[in-house]
Amino acid sequence: MKALYYKDKAQYLEDYPIPVPGPSESLVKILISAICNTDKEVLKGYKPNFSGVLGHEFVGEVVESNKKELIGKRVVGELNEGCGQCIYCRTGREKHCLNRKVIGIAGRDGCFAEYMTIHSDLLHVVPEEIPTEVAIFTEPLAAALEIMEQAHIQPSKNVAVIGDGRLAFMIAQVVSLSGADLTIIGRHEDKLKQFSSFAKTTTEADETYEIVIDATGSPDGILSAQKLVRNKGLIVIKSTYAGKVEIDMSSFVVNEITIKGSRCGPFEPAMQLLQRGLVTLPAIELYELKDYEKALQSKAFKAGFKF
Amino acid sequence: MKALYYKDKAQYLEDYPIPVPGPSESLVKILISAICNTDKEVLKGYKPNFSGVLGHEFVGEVVESNKKELIGKRVVGELNEGCGQCIYCRTGREKHCLNRKVIGIAGRDGCFAEYMTIHSDLLHVVPEEIPTEVAIFTEPLAAALEIMEQAHIQPSKNVAVIGDGRLAFMIAQVVSLSGADLTIIGRHEDKLKQFSSFAKTTTEADETYEIVIDATGSPDGILSAQKLVRNKGLIVIKSTYAGKVEIDMSSFVVNEITIKGSRCGPFEPAMQLLQRGLVTLPAIELYELKDYEKALQSKAFKAGFKF
Ligand SMILES: [Zn+2]
Ligand SMILES: [Zn+2]
Ligand SMILES: [Zn+2]
Ligand SMILES: [Zn+2]
Repeated sequence: MKALYYKDKAQYLEDYPIPVPGPSESLVKILISAICNTDKEVLKGYKPNFSGVLGHEFVGEVVESNKKELIGKRVVGELNEGCGQCIYCRTGREKHCLNRKVIGIAGRDGCFAEYMTIHSDLLHVVPEEIPTEVAIFTEPLAAALEIMEQAHIQPSKNVAVIGDGRLAFMIAQVVSLSGADLTIIGRHEDKLKQFSSFAKTTTEADETYEIVIDATGSPDGILSAQKLVRNKGLIVIKSTYAGKVEIDMSSFVVNEITIKGSRCGPFEPAMQLLQRGLVTLPAIELYELKDYEKALQSKAFKAGFKF
Repeated sequence: MKALYYKDKAQYLEDYPIPVPGPSESLVKILISAICNTDKEVLKGYKPNFSGVLGHEFVGEVVESNKKELIGKRVVGELNEGCGQCIYCRTGREKHCLNRKVIGIAGRDGCFAEYMTIHSDLLHVVPEEIPTEVAIFTEPLAAALEIMEQAHIQPSKNVAVIGDGRLAFMIAQVVSLSGADLTIIGRHEDKLKQFSSFAKTTTEADETYEIVIDATGSPDGILSAQKLVRNKGLIVIKSTYAGKVEIDMSSFVVNEITIKGSRCGPFEPAMQLLQRGLVTLPAIELYELKDYEKALQSKAFKAGFKF
């Protein structure tokens, strides 16, 4: 099969053997897969020790599985495979497992290929009503929903999202469902227009907010958030951009700010929101795998591969 | 009256007029007052715009007051006087008021003097059972209790306090009342002995913790805490030491850490703990105001002035 292989900060289109599922695994035929910002970070060297097939966002069809009821089913899959033994796996935090394998990122081949194997417990069946090209957004939408899992966004609060890109768009849609008074703070008038049906938008914030969500994708997003958040308020950091930043912690102490880091989230609620049409997203732009260079450079809201 | 006056990074013993209380204020005759780390920070230039009488921890007796029921009563007092108008004052966060005056720190004379005036709403009557030299610990103990106000310290969790000084001692006593598995991580074997009746102690942590409380008084306490906290865990920062620190925020995001800054706390619960003897503290070392240089250099657990 063809696969987009990553090694030493470069990607290669390779002829790769069809993988063989282990005893707790499924073999999935990939229908479509999507490029995520993390894939681009991997290509820049964010995970120097990783080599393997790239990609972790996919919709596929189960071909073989230890769980017979999955065979023939359309599925999406979680990224993080825990060891089952460590303190995190034993306390319901498998995605934080110290020895975790992460699809297309650490220790496991990803989904930019015709077939992929995956631990069967990580698979979620996609309801028939959700088209494949909508279901592909399950993973990034789940990551946005993780904010609601971690923090109580009260409807009476005012909330700001900093950023006007893809990540901000997902987060803003989810937060807007809370009924909270939501403002998007961005740099691009044209991008901000996309948010205007469900949030206030501005390029220059002149207010303060009880909750500020950093979706800038920049290491100094915390500093922008610090200027906007009210005392005793909450900052949620969604940016995983590597790089250090200089912080005066004493101001967070004096102002009693809470800061929460937020990563992957729950799949089933994300699919429910997609199924009900409560979150609507631009169409994914699909390429053939051989055109991966074009796909990686696409400026579409979401680009990906069809197989 | 005699007062310890601060101006331009230096303190002076001055003859100062006895203050006259405003319409919502009380005149308090100071019985004892205590030196806090913040006072030493002020002396180092932490509040360059402040000049006035130093000190904010006191036990006194009300001499005059708009609230007649307070006259003759023994009292302690909160530091932060809100404006009553701003977003924080209107939402129960007076101590975060943007225009706040802070006794002995910003815009108001403090308690290193024979008399002080204070907004009467900031006063709390000390129950008769609490000796004056115990009641003096109400303010720092309230600050420690603020952690319990902000975070849910579940009894089943393991908690580490970093630091073995005064601040750590107050915090550790309060946290130990939760029943949680508590470890104090310090550098000084002799100081750590003080904690041994109610917590585990170590100079070299080889474990990780669900909740880590930074009481180091150092700007890089956050970095020590980061090494010790478990994924999805909580760091509480109690150090207000000024100074910037370089942080890799992405690791907090990936590990979904929560960070909470914590400052002043509730007085009534603190007095209740003192009254019941649930928190026991070393005796305060008392000096006459004229010996303020000795007092400021004292290495006692708590030093202060008697009037
Ligand atoms: Zn992704
Ligand atoms: Zn594990
Ligand atoms: Zn103090
Ligand atoms: Zn105010």
